[in-house]
Amino acid sequence: MSGRLIGVGTGPGDPELLTLKAVKALAVADVLAHFAKRGNNSNARKIVAAYMRPEMVELPLLYPVTTEIDKEHDDYKQAITGFYEESARAVEEHLAAGRTVAVLSEGDPLFYGSYMHLHVRLAHRFPTEVIPGVTAMSGSWSATGLPIVQGDDVLSVLPGTMDETELQRRLADTDAAVIMKVGRNLPKIRRALRSAGKLDRSMYVERATMDNAASIRLTDKADDAAPYFAIVLVPGWEARS
Amino acid sequence: MSGRLIGVGTGPGDPELLTLKAVKALAVADVLAHFAKRGNNSNARKIVAAYMRPEMVELPLLYPVTTEIDKEHDDYKQAITGFYEESARAVEEHLAAGRTVAVLSEGDPLFYGSYMHLHVRLAHRFPTEVIPGVTAMSGSWSATGLPIVQGDDVLSVLPGTMDETELQRRLADTDAAVIMKVGRNLPKIRRALRSAGKLDRSMYVERATMDNAASIRLTDKADDAAPYFAIVLVPGWEARS
Repeated sequence: MSGRLIGVGTGPGDPELLTLKAVKALAVADVLAHFAKRGNNSNARKIVAAYMRPEMVELPLLYPVTTEIDKEHDDYKQAITGFYEESARAVEEHLAAGRTVAVLSEGDPLFYGSYMHLHVRLAHRFPTEVIPGVTAMSGSWSATGLPIVQGDDVLSVLPGTMDETELQRRLADTDAAVIMKVGRNLPKIRRALRSAGKLDRSMYVERATMDNAASIRLTDKADDAAPYFAIVLVPGWEARS
Repeated sequence: MSGRLIGVGTGPGDPELLTLKAVKALAVADVLAHFAKRGNNSNARKIVAAYMRPEMVELPLLYPVTTEIDKEHDDYKQAITGFYEESARAVEEHLAAGRTVAVLSEGDPLFYGSYMHLHVRLAHRFPTEVIPGVTAMSGSWSATGLPIVQGDDVLSVLPGTMDETELQRRLADTDAAVIMKVGRNLPKIRRALRSAGKLDRSMYVERATMDNAASIRLTDKADDAAPYFAIVLVPGWEARS
């Protein structure tokens, strides 16, 4: 009998934002898989640390490359596809041996999560369950107490990696926005927000719900230093209040 | 000493998708407030039923009108604003008396939730905490096992109430989409999706993660009957696989 694949959303950072369902999955999983950059601890693993059991097998899946390189380059595409293939094989081995494998995913597994690369390769062949989690963006607007959308607002979730003209066009064409993957894109994001007339109501949020969380009005942020996973929030609400 | 206001996200429906933090809030709240339509039980209340304590004071906040009427009409605007004012006063009375009030919100409190109407009226005057929750859209794509966005995908969250031309334009201009508030808008949503070339990969989801959940490819759905809170998902992923 084969094992079960469980994609476990760990939420944005605060271990108390784990769902009861995620905690139950961690109580039965034989194998705990988590993605991480080489040399860095997995954030998702830190979130669930209190629920790890000594008999659990850990399966770290280490990205071969950093996240801030040119993703359109063929070398990158080959390396990352090979990595997901290899990771799926490592998980499959445990599933075929009848072990239940929990794959951790910060936030929500099918919302920009690496888990989905395993899901599409394995879910049609093994019993699979996806446990949704609180997203980083929900953690961010809740931590800052910022109503993000109401009524018939349109919300656009935009990668900060996007071309400036395109980012500006989309910011001007939406009620509310969440800009992900900020990092070194922050100066460009500021310019696009200013052109779209939305800089003044934008909030900058780092590591929301974690111990070292920080949030500030973007216009009050003096420098352009930002981690890759920082988020900029543009509330729809304030436009009409 | 005044009490504390807590906006509690209950998640999409499955009580196991409550966060540990939400359960803790329910264990300390003196008053449990929840929005509901007159004559209907609150879904959020159903989700937390197992965590209610006999000594808790219940404060039902009953909408004066249904959700599917013309929101641009002045009568509606006046009635709904009056209702939120009155609800805020009812909550405030408890806070001023030193009681901790948990306000339930299906999904996530600041993401299209009624809670935010209390938040903007009370959060600057009383100690306030917002506990994010798993959104209905996360519950929907997880239940169907549908990777919704990856990499640099743009996600648009669109109300189904939107004008058809505008809906079609926005559907054509995004990688992935979530269409909320489906209800009687379904025929229009189908037409907009077809014109935007995205009907074939759309999923229709009802009551995700609840006992009576249902999901189906939209092209396989024979009728146009849909509850107001049904969701249509357009994954970005399948566009490139």
